[in-house]
Amino acid sequence: MKIVVLKFGGTSVGTIQKIKKVADIIASYKRKNYKVIVISSAMSGVTNNLIKKSYQISDNFSDAEHDILVSSGEQMACSFIAGRLIHKGYKSRSWISWQVPIITVGPYKNARINQINKKEIIKYLREGGIPIITGFQGVNYENRITTIGRGGSDASAIMFAKFFKAQRCVIYTDVEGVYTTDPNKLKKAKKIKEISYEEMLEMASLGAKVMQPVSIQDARLNRIDIEVRSSYKKKSGTLITKKSNINSNKIITGISSTQNDSKVSLIGVRDRPGVAAAIFKPLSLNSINVDMVVQNISANGKETDLTFTIKTEDLNKTKKIIQLNKKINFRKLIFEKNVSKISIIGVGMITTPGVTFRMFQTLANKRINIKVISTSEIKISVLIDKKNSQKALTSLHKEFELN
Amino acid sequence: MKIVVLKFGGTSVGTIQKIKKVADIIASYKRKNYKVIVISSAMSGVTNNLIKKSYQISDNFSDAEHDILVSSGEQMACSFIAGRLIHKGYKSRSWISWQVPIITVGPYKNARINQINKKEIIKYLREGGIPIITGFQGVNYENRITTIGRGGSDASAIMFAKFFKAQRCVIYTDVEGVYTTDPNKLKKAKKIKEISYEEMLEMASLGAKVMQPVSIQDARLNRIDIEVRSSYKKKSGTLITKKSNINSNKIITGISSTQNDSKVSLIGVRDRPGVAAAIFKPLSLNSINVDMVVQNISANGKETDLTFTIKTEDLNKTKKIIQLNKKINFRKLIFEKNVSKISIIGVGMITTPGVTFRMFQTLANKRINIKVISTSEIKISVLIDKKNSQKALTSLHKEFELN
Repeated sequence: MKIVVLKFGGTSVGTIQKIKKVADIIASYKRKNYKVIVISSAMSGVTNNLIKKSYQISDNFSDAEHDILVSSGEQMACSFIAGRLIHKGYKSRSWISWQVPIITVGPYKNARINQINKKEIIKYLREGGIPIITGFQGVNYENRITTIGRGGSDASAIMFAKFFKAQRCVIYTDVEGVYTTDPNKLKKAKKIKEISYEEMLEMASLGAKVMQPVSIQDARLNRIDIEVRSSYKKKSGTLITKKSNINSNKIITGISSTQNDSKVSLIGVRDRPGVAAAIFKPLSLNSINVDMVVQNISANGKETDLTFTIKTEDLNKTKKIIQLNKKINFRKLIFEKNVSKISIIGVGMITTPGVTFRMFQTLANKRINIKVISTSEIKISVLIDKKNSQKALTSLHKEFELN
Repeated sequence: MKIVVLKFGGTSVGTIQKIKKVADIIASYKRKNYKVIVISSAMSGVTNNLIKKSYQISDNFSDAEHDILVSSGEQMACSFIAGRLIHKGYKSRSWISWQVPIITVGPYKNARINQINKKEIIKYLREGGIPIITGFQGVNYENRITTIGRGGSDASAIMFAKFFKAQRCVIYTDVEGVYTTDPNKLKKAKKIKEISYEEMLEMASLGAKVMQPVSIQDARLNRIDIEVRSSYKKKSGTLITKKSNINSNKIITGISSTQNDSKVSLIGVRDRPGVAAAIFKPLSLNSINVDMVVQNISANGKETDLTFTIKTEDLNKTKKIIQLNKKINFRKLIFEKNVSKISIIGVGMITTPGVTFRMFQTLANKRINIKVISTSEIKISVLIDKKNSQKALTSLHKEFELN
């Protein structure tokens, strides 16, 4: 069977008018003789509204009841979509997670899909039906509804694509695809036609916000091609696929930049095993997200300098935690607000020497000082003054021929 | 086990604030060592809002999808109630119809409960838990959600009371109970302490609107005591029970009156078998509700006069249908707007002679002309001019010592 999984996000089904459009999109695949499996999120706003009410019931609302409560959102959206397809003359019906069933394991609010019963759905597809399935949820072995913590409906779609061996998984959302950089920051940003899972993972964690990293990782592990595209515009989107499928001579696929970062440096830290853990454990316990971490080699073997970046909103909390931390000794503590991290990402850099140099040279030519450098196999990140971030983005975008 | 079934209607759970109050009521039964089973409707407005949206999807929205759509309403309400009870320190959880399961038969939108699986609920009650169960719905043998056509959540509550052999079924609603007559029409109307199923059936069909007749009939067949009471006020309500339980010397239990009725008379109808059916079939097909029907004995064996009442809003439609009806012959058609039906109801009249006479005499004393009379074992209805309806109500209420 030529199966395609279509996933529609909350904004794509946000109004009755949009749901009608979604039904048209689904029908277009059906006309191309695909067997179509649809995964839907709740209409945007519905879930948050329910959660808001649950807080009025209790500031410690039961996790199990939370899951049965919010799962009603996808239930409603699926019945609307199926109802519209039936109206248009198609054979369709909603399948709530417990009807499939989609079996989950793990705690309420944070379960993961373990198994999908294919039998009924396969039969229905063979009969020409279009199943509309609730994303973001499943039923556990105690026969109670659970919601999927990370990845949400995207994760549901990828699991369906995996279990049904779908040819493709199409994620319909409110953006047109993945861009070389944030189009709001740089007008010359271009939509990327094809991107590898690995690049997408680096892009996503840097704020591409198109898909949750956990879902991309699931797709990567199961070698599922994902197309991200807009449910509003009839333009092709971005295909997330394995490296060998990509036919591109670009070294760099995308550039990302952050805002509102701050740099924290501990100078003259008494170096001993476990000192980094002693610094970062209390930050982690206080939900402070540490991004870049750079530690210089200790010159005398006794002291070291350690630098890391955090969100500026966490700066005061971080200061306090470090100053109260009795497990570490250091000579000086330096904070710097208004820094920005610029990253270039591309699988091409693995096989192309000199990318690092080109990046640094480009920034030097613009007289932009680099404060911190951090690299991975397919990513180079530098920390610079925030005031230079736009200049850096523009020049790097040009240098690596992304315009 | 001392089991009580508590049912909360849509207005009783209409806001988060009201749901908190409902949780308090449930807790009060638990403290009295009852095993409590709760049946909840959807928060008022939720179901209608969903139905309104479904009409925007399609003017012929699928019945099966309608049921899965609106069933989400009870699901949300139950999770809120359970969440609140957990917050208050009680062991509680929501049970969606398919989790119990509550098995239904019959078509979507109009199914009826066939079976309730008691096992899990009994176990949960034994453990001290308070199950909060979705009313108005079940799951059919194809594992799809169905809603109960007539009686709704009341019917669910009565079926639970039946299957679990509950000591009592308490219907919490927005009225304080059943009254001797509509309190909006007569200030001297009094709350009835106890009423028989049969009287309640006559009251309900006459517009008492407290419970649907089908649910009262279910309760009667299963001999389940129902208490109707307000979820806002701590006053005792009305007990609906079997005749022999009622300790009252009243002959008449209640009086009802209608508004907006019209009388239709066909004079000189050619009398032959099937003529009544020929008149009423097209009215029924057009959803026109015929109330009182009186046919005079044909004097010459060839002609008869036939009178019936309808809602005034259906008058023009009725006129047209009768005039176009080629299957009937009559000499004259008479319409009369602005008539009102007054009914006195009471099981006491079966054993008390002269009730009919007392009613007619009371009206005659007030110079109120009776247009049509219709009687059943426990009810006498008369049709009078609408302008006299208040006078009739007041004098009959006094005559039969209901003040």
